[in-house]
Amino acid sequence: MTNKVKIAVDAMGGEHSPKKIIDGIEASLNFNKNNHFYLFGEKNIIEKSLDEKKDLYKFCEIIHTKDKILDDESPLTAAKRGKNSSMWKAIESLKDKQTDIALSAGNTGALLVISRLLLNTIEGISKPALAALWPNKNDMNIVLDLGANIECSEKNLSDFASMGSALFKSLFEKEKPKVALLNVGLEEIKGNEILKKTYSILKNDKIKNFEFCGYIEGNQIMNGDVDVIITDGFTGNIALKTAEGTATFITNSLRESLNKLSMLLSYKSLKRFKEKLDPRKYNGAIFLGLQSPVVKSHGSTDFFGFSHSINVCNKIVKGNLIKKIESHLITVDV
Amino acid sequence: MTNKVKIAVDAMGGEHSPKKIIDGIEASLNFNKNNHFYLFGEKNIIEKSLDEKKDLYKFCEIIHTKDKILDDESPLTAAKRGKNSSMWKAIESLKDKQTDIALSAGNTGALLVISRLLLNTIEGISKPALAALWPNKNDMNIVLDLGANIECSEKNLSDFASMGSALFKSLFEKEKPKVALLNVGLEEIKGNEILKKTYSILKNDKIKNFEFCGYIEGNQIMNGDVDVIITDGFTGNIALKTAEGTATFITNSLRESLNKLSMLLSYKSLKRFKEKLDPRKYNGAIFLGLQSPVVKSHGSTDFFGFSHSINVCNKIVKGNLIKKIESHLITVDV
Repeated sequence: MTNKVKIAVDAMGGEHSPKKIIDGIEASLNFNKNNHFYLFGEKNIIEKSLDEKKDLYKFCEIIHTKDKILDDESPLTAAKRGKNSSMWKAIESLKDKQTDIALSAGNTGALLVISRLLLNTIEGISKPALAALWPNKNDMNIVLDLGANIECSEKNLSDFASMGSALFKSLFEKEKPKVALLNVGLEEIKGNEILKKTYSILKNDKIKNFEFCGYIEGNQIMNGDVDVIITDGFTGNIALKTAEGTATFITNSLRESLNKLSMLLSYKSLKRFKEKLDPRKYNGAIFLGLQSPVVKSHGSTDFFGFSHSINVCNKIVKGNLIKKIESHLITVDV
Repeated sequence: MTNKVKIAVDAMGGEHSPKKIIDGIEASLNFNKNNHFYLFGEKNIIEKSLDEKKDLYKFCEIIHTKDKILDDESPLTAAKRGKNSSMWKAIESLKDKQTDIALSAGNTGALLVISRLLLNTIEGISKPALAALWPNKNDMNIVLDLGANIECSEKNLSDFASMGSALFKSLFEKEKPKVALLNVGLEEIKGNEILKKTYSILKNDKIKNFEFCGYIEGNQIMNGDVDVIITDGFTGNIALKTAEGTATFITNSLRESLNKLSMLLSYKSLKRFKEKLDPRKYNGAIFLGLQSPVVKSHGSTDFFGFSHSINVCNKIVKGNLIKKIESHLITVDV
């Protein structure tokens, strides 16, 4: 057990859980055996899935909870009535330092609210943010905030720069990640007042753990020129979902344009194309800025996608994310 | 000349002008011969392009201007020094009612500033907005604002709903277009204060020329469920450019994944795919809310894309856009 990463898993959240969760844990063992899973949820149901894979028992511990958060529940209702839910108990184990990181494929809003209720923010950070991996021409970058905060001050955005860089370093081991602010133009005078103030803070900051590259526009997110892209939660959420919608639209158009024969003839190429863009490889949004990290898997991903979010959890803990954030906070006078 | 749409064309703006402009005019005659073009620019250069297509002379009139706005000029510099430029003179002809609509493939920022300087806004509208066509599953919809206004009030967004609907009706002849507000969630309580106020204005408005469908998220822009999507210029610009970047990324990935043989074997299907998504068919952003409409063609489009923006100009004038906007203004108490 020593040195193993202790992952608190909400085993009841998301579609096809807990089966997907158990299958995901099994798949994750192919690239990493150094995790121990604390499975929060209905004991009988979890055991039924585990009994088919008895080898997994040595990597898992079940903590029975009689309740769960529903996917369509409002976050506040969930937080009010959900104290005995698998999600709540998983996050509570983090608070009590019994686990290192929490992972759920359940209700995103509820996860954000319950995490904020139970966990303190890192000293100096006023708003935590939701970060995710985004594919680009070279490999992937990180974008935050993706929806935790509708409105952000220059202090919040500067925090995001420092937290996002710490996350990038934990996941990809790069010394000085390149950071940019998402804006509607590249010139220093573009954008709203908050962006201009953030620009001047990031440009002048001395202790920073990243290289500030100024503004980028929406069409440059996937260019691969920067590692961490900073935006408020409103804009980030719209950008992320617009990109998802565009990707779906184009791949559907492609499918409709190809007839059966050319599908067959290009089978291997199309498979290569699909694998390259497989959203399951980018699964796992990270709730950053709390004293313990919380990871959100897509609710509708399958076991393979879930195994990738387990991998993200492992890298975050092994990479000492929280320490990295704490040691690189930007001081902003506001 | 009677009943012809009089289009003021900035013949010097954008890449490969005026050749692209002249070729675009020629291509536009295939679907519409009811336009008359007032070509503003360096007479000698325009004539050189026209001399190769003498048949076009009867559709065109050249108005010599000795200056032009550069693509990389700052909008304010351009507006200050550009009074003898092809762009300025084209818009001035609108102001003087010599033409019905202006079209330029030049510097967007300069076009917005010069248009606002020379043309009055429609009475009751405080901010004009930039609208564009966006492909969707069924055909296309309109999104605005795409960058003319970084910050928008509920009054501005409500105006956009009414102007966007008038534009959609002019272009696609639909009685009551479906309008939605771009947001980070579908529930009435989501989003910032301005969006919530706009929601309640649009929900309660009685004289409206559209059907209000509430909020939509970024991944639904291309679903084809609504016709007009309303957002502030900051968010709209980020969404548009993120969609462009995603489309480029995916089509490049596809190209890299296909080997030469499968490219050859799927040639016809890929051609069909490319045609369906051809951005040139959606070329032409419309600056709405001024007493005369101004259309912006993409600077880097070719003659075919430019011919589509000519078509947009024709439909806007024939569809009585400005009258439609004037007769459906929403009264907002702010």
